[in-house]
Amino acid sequence: MNADKNDQKKLIRTSYSKDISVDFDNKNITVIGWIVSMRKQGKIYFMMLYDSTGPLQIIIKKGVSPDDIFAQAETLKEHSSIAVRGTIKKNEKAPNSVELHPEEISVLSTANKIPPFSLYGGQLPNIDKRLDIRAIDLRRPSAQSIMKLRAKTLQLIRNFYIDKDYLEVNTPKIIATATEGGSALFPMLYYDKEAFLTQSPQLFKEQLVLPFEKVFEIAYAYRAEKSRTLHHISEFISVDMEQAFIDYKDVLKIIEESLIYLKDDLLQSSSEHLD
Amino acid sequence: MNADKNDQKKLIRTSYSKDISVDFDNKNITVIGWIVSMRKQGKIYFMMLYDSTGPLQIIIKKGVSPDDIFAQAETLKEHSSIAVRGTIKKNEKAPNSVELHPEEISVLSTANKIPPFSLYGGQLPNIDKRLDIRAIDLRRPSAQSIMKLRAKTLQLIRNFYIDKDYLEVNTPKIIATATEGGSALFPMLYYDKEAFLTQSPQLFKEQLVLPFEKVFEIAYAYRAEKSRTLHHISEFISVDMEQAFIDYKDVLKIIEESLIYLKDDLLQSSSEHLD
Repeated sequence: MNADKNDQKKLIRTSYSKDISVDFDNKNITVIGWIVSMRKQGKIYFMMLYDSTGPLQIIIKKGVSPDDIFAQAETLKEHSSIAVRGTIKKNEKAPNSVELHPEEISVLSTANKIPPFSLYGGQLPNIDKRLDIRAIDLRRPSAQSIMKLRAKTLQLIRNFYIDKDYLEVNTPKIIATATEGGSALFPMLYYDKEAFLTQSPQLFKEQLVLPFEKVFEIAYAYRAEKSRTLHHISEFISVDMEQAFIDYKDVLKIIEESLIYLKDDLLQSSSEHLD
Repeated sequence: MNADKNDQKKLIRTSYSKDISVDFDNKNITVIGWIVSMRKQGKIYFMMLYDSTGPLQIIIKKGVSPDDIFAQAETLKEHSSIAVRGTIKKNEKAPNSVELHPEEISVLSTANKIPPFSLYGGQLPNIDKRLDIRAIDLRRPSAQSIMKLRAKTLQLIRNFYIDKDYLEVNTPKIIATATEGGSALFPMLYYDKEAFLTQSPQLFKEQLVLPFEKVFEIAYAYRAEKSRTLHHISEFISVDMEQAFIDYKDVLKIIEESLIYLKDDLLQSSSEHLD
């Protein structure tokens, strides 16, 4: 069965990979994702399909699977996006101890090119090669973990300050003059006036404690400081807090508390991304 | 007792206004905040002190309060920040049904000027006058409510997408070329190259659904479109979501759901700011 508009309409996702457990044995389900690997061993195709929640093994067997599915398997390429309807069977050796036996496959998007390096094992090429196909490079399991940990970290820092009654504020990033001495600024044109990208919310947050006492901001800041490493960038995200009626010892205590909270929660909530 | 370095060290906040209830009757506490109003009626001073959590009434009475406190009251100015130690007494007519009888007052910062308009009632001047002293203008109760509702709204939208397994991403705001046709861009200088401020994370989020399937971003965007109203600004915050394998009907459903969730939660959690 080849992909066409009608097929695509028929297949509606019923499940995400991570939710499919042995309790789904013999259930008919539909999943959508991208093909991560496709191996043929004798009369069996082993396909690994990923969606945003993780892997699902798909088995296509000559004489067992429908003939048209077995024929279609030959044409399926890694990194293509497909929808698959089929029956779940227990298999202790597969991810989540289940595999899918397809009865209908719809190709949503065919990969025209295969990445020049394997995302799932082997030597990684240098950063420039990876950035050329960054959207695909980010499918690597370790890249997925880094991005998920990063999002979780920002979420936890936010929650930490919100729980302690700090008001989240958003201050201007286009400014008329330098905020702090020393840093080099990126100049820009604000209509017919010269302006700059802010290198810090410092002066704004100092003003905002007058009405709100406790504020924080998580926002971009910009410093026109060239660097020879990969780790110092001109556009970065800063976490800024400001509070009235306290001294530097209180500030140190709050920051320490936030880091401990962050560490404890990440170890609990994100252990699968920390290995 | 006048303010000096030693006084300031002595007074450590024990309570926030909103937490002081009739259960505090006869308790000795210390609060820190700014003086919102100061009226003298015969031999009594009525002071309203605000901290970030709300108001607390302070009473200074000739012959009852210590003599030096009564003398000091004459010198206290509205909008000054002070720390006050004293005893809580029930008073049904006061906010939270309590008032504070001070035994020690330390002036942390004296207001040199009084705002040219009242923040707590009466006619408001035009926006330009208010922006001249914006940090003080934001002490107005309605401005406080607006900023708190705004922060809560962003927090709820974030939680809505995080709960549904969307990955929060942060894409570059300095870009090399226009993202979408039509919009006017702010030009800037990125070291020795021309660059622009992004008007939308559109192209980045489209790429990011390849590895992550469901993403969202809450971030600044910039459009060089002059406006004659106060409500259309060149720097704004946009909420962007993007998801693979769905169509426009699903998108409408998700957006509708998010707005209902937002409305329901705000009515519950923030009713005091919605009047």
